[in-house]
Amino acid sequence: MRSFLISLLATSCLLGCSDAKIDSGEASQSNSEAKVKTVRSREVDKLIKIAMAGTHAYDITESLTTEIGPRVGGSPEEAKAREWAVKKFKEIGLQNVRIEPFTMPYWERGIETAAIVSPFPQQLYITSLGGSVATPSEGIEAEIAFFPTFEDLKTAPESGLEGKIVFISGRMEKAPDGAGYGPANQKRRLGATEAAKRGAIAVVIRSVGTDSHRFPHTGMMRYQEDIKKIPIAALSAPDADQLERTLKRGQKVSLKMTLTPKWSGDRQSGNVIGQITGTERPDEIVLVGGHLDSWDLGTGAVDDGAGIGISAGAAQVILESGLKPKRTLRVVAFGAEEVGLLGAYAYVKAHKDTDLDRHVLATESDFGAGPAYEVKSGVRSGEHVIRDMANAMGLPMSEGATNGGPDIGPMFSEGVPVMRFQQEGTDYFDLHHTPDDTFDKINPDEIAQNVAAFATMMWLASEADTDFRGQ
Amino acid sequence: MRSFLISLLATSCLLGCSDAKIDSGEASQSNSEAKVKTVRSREVDKLIKIAMAGTHAYDITESLTTEIGPRVGGSPEEAKAREWAVKKFKEIGLQNVRIEPFTMPYWERGIETAAIVSPFPQQLYITSLGGSVATPSEGIEAEIAFFPTFEDLKTAPESGLEGKIVFISGRMEKAPDGAGYGPANQKRRLGATEAAKRGAIAVVIRSVGTDSHRFPHTGMMRYQEDIKKIPIAALSAPDADQLERTLKRGQKVSLKMTLTPKWSGDRQSGNVIGQITGTERPDEIVLVGGHLDSWDLGTGAVDDGAGIGISAGAAQVILESGLKPKRTLRVVAFGAEEVGLLGAYAYVKAHKDTDLDRHVLATESDFGAGPAYEVKSGVRSGEHVIRDMANAMGLPMSEGATNGGPDIGPMFSEGVPVMRFQQEGTDYFDLHHTPDDTFDKINPDEIAQNVAAFATMMWLASEADTDFRGQ
Repeated sequence: MRSFLISLLATSCLLGCSDAKIDSGEASQSNSEAKVKTVRSREVDKLIKIAMAGTHAYDITESLTTEIGPRVGGSPEEAKAREWAVKKFKEIGLQNVRIEPFTMPYWERGIETAAIVSPFPQQLYITSLGGSVATPSEGIEAEIAFFPTFEDLKTAPESGLEGKIVFISGRMEKAPDGAGYGPANQKRRLGATEAAKRGAIAVVIRSVGTDSHRFPHTGMMRYQEDIKKIPIAALSAPDADQLERTLKRGQKVSLKMTLTPKWSGDRQSGNVIGQITGTERPDEIVLVGGHLDSWDLGTGAVDDGAGIGISAGAAQVILESGLKPKRTLRVVAFGAEEVGLLGAYAYVKAHKDTDLDRHVLATESDFGAGPAYEVKSGVRSGEHVIRDMANAMGLPMSEGATNGGPDIGPMFSEGVPVMRFQQEGTDYFDLHHTPDDTFDKINPDEIAQNVAAFATMMWLASEADTDFRGQ
Repeated sequence: MRSFLISLLATSCLLGCSDAKIDSGEASQSNSEAKVKTVRSREVDKLIKIAMAGTHAYDITESLTTEIGPRVGGSPEEAKAREWAVKKFKEIGLQNVRIEPFTMPYWERGIETAAIVSPFPQQLYITSLGGSVATPSEGIEAEIAFFPTFEDLKTAPESGLEGKIVFISGRMEKAPDGAGYGPANQKRRLGATEAAKRGAIAVVIRSVGTDSHRFPHTGMMRYQEDIKKIPIAALSAPDADQLERTLKRGQKVSLKMTLTPKWSGDRQSGNVIGQITGTERPDEIVLVGGHLDSWDLGTGAVDDGAGIGISAGAAQVILESGLKPKRTLRVVAFGAEEVGLLGAYAYVKAHKDTDLDRHVLATESDFGAGPAYEVKSGVRSGEHVIRDMANAMGLPMSEGATNGGPDIGPMFSEGVPVMRFQQEGTDYFDLHHTPDDTFDKINPDEIAQNVAAFATMMWLASEADTDFRGQ
């Protein structure tokens, strides 16, 4: 990492840290775009230096995880996190800091226990999936019907699992961009429906994760309205292994599980917003964000305290630099992402009739705190500015498409141009949605590089003459 | 690892796998010790080949962890593990399989919860240390008195902690031989006494471990008879970090904790013993072992299912080879090691007046399943045979002393000669005494190399003319 950071600073220096070079650049370039680029580079270089020398995101993430901790969408802890964010945004120097509230249904985890009853009694580490219904309070005990993969369940006959607890295994592949998540997540989202269709009374899945630690991974599931709702929970990888080894012996395997989650009615959540008002085009908005809520098992450091730290930290760097952006730079801490992007949809709803069409460019950080390694564009014009952002950070452009990130997706669907720094996330799904998502997992150098990237993006988007919306 | 294994096989081939070479060796060597060595090498080579090609220890460890799981000394699960061991030893083909029972006090874990109450409420992952007394059933709530290290507590004034919960931090250093464990373990063993002397009402320690996962590490503690007994528990490393970060803010920090462990009176435990009776000197015993009990949090794979697998697996390899050892090879699955080496002491007591003085050489595996990387001797004569064992495995001799391992220590104190294969254990204390000590952590190639080492040791000790006891 250190050599990477040195090369990053060297790259940015080549573009602008020598006054002689800049002057010569200004003098010799007749192409106005190249000239603008060189001038910009000096400012970007300043931002990168401040970001890389500082602990902006690291400190903000430390504060959120230490002082608030777990903060499920709609919970009293998420409400405290909003108060924390208002205070933190004001401390940093953001303007017009406010909460945009919305109402949401609230799902609460209850008791969660499971054990192999026979042939070899053993406790298992399990957690309810978000949105799951409860078992009866005394639990359920039944024989396991095993499906090595979700595909095996989907292609099984449409009956024959009556009275059984379905166990769906299947491993998630590790990848820097988390490409294994989508396929692995099918069983989490749809497993209960597919099992219920075939008569099953409950489901356990091998956690959607890439670790081999004794932490089950939670995350939202969905029911299909016309299919019976049955409880569903995730086993840690070692416990899924244990169950598979037990099943391999060919005997009937019985499981007992008790889950008592519940929907507790409507609660308030909200998005916390702050900004640096633009000097020349204040009504044009460059938006960066992350989500403020977390799952309840960990303290939400990589998911997504880091995203709050990176986006607010980048704004802090710009304020520290003394540079005055032309466009308004808006930082949004979205509420209730984990439980269905509720803050993201609320944001679109609240802004659709006011300023959503004046959102020039948006991005978020919601993939941990690993170093940005490439840049994806989702703009309709002005892609050269996105390329400048990548160049300034010494990063390649990616061929892939982006919707800007989970919380940016809904506004992207409404026409807001987006981009994204792809973050190195090979180990992200070791921690994702587990108790192990804690602050100690954040590397200060790596998160600082993300701050540099976000500050660069915000500055260049603010200064660009380009309208990324294609007009 | 693969290159290591290939080099091991190559080494053993050089010593004996070519018949031509062996014949030539026998013909040209006049020194009788060298001649014996060459003949032995062919047999050792056979053992190593069988061990390396097989899954002896891997399968035994799989069976124990899958079919029995956690098995605390004195528990019903440990009793089931003894039945399992009797059956497994007989299946392997060991003779004279028996349980040597002993009685022991039984400590049971109860509820264990902890939370920072103020200034920032958060649940903490905690576990009682073995032998701890309980808190009142409603828990205790008190201000934290922080000591960065155990040394800081020991050198603190002899009063001033009245009514406080002492938090002792201090990190354990990683090392291949686990050298950091002894120093780090001081706070676990003696922390309650040192805190109670100064008026404290309870203690939490940073877990004695080298990981940064959200698992607290349990393990036995001790009280000093004349000092008040106060409850003591361990926090996971991320929770200890959380508490330290909270304390750094300079405010008073209050903790609430509830622990309900108890001593439940005397229970039965036992050592399970089996053997391959020697053909020429059946009354002379070569002993190998591991401990059958585990802590209750994990399934006791690296601590010490692997040790049972390696010692029984090595005996299985010898039986499969068709070789007939001259001395008796004894395999012991010790009971109740974790709670104070109770099986080891019971073994010495049971054998002191019968055959302990005919124990020629003893060793055990109780440091996971990492590859053996060097050999330590603890014999009074015949060290060249120990060197032969090392040579056959391609391992260097260590300068360091050994008592043969925790369960071998008591018989070593009574004069039994010992040796030990040092196992690579850099990551051992990531898992040690946590829920994460599960079968998936065992590498089949690495544990097979240990089986090869143990089979080599057993064979060469059985065949040696040397009496390691110094007569």
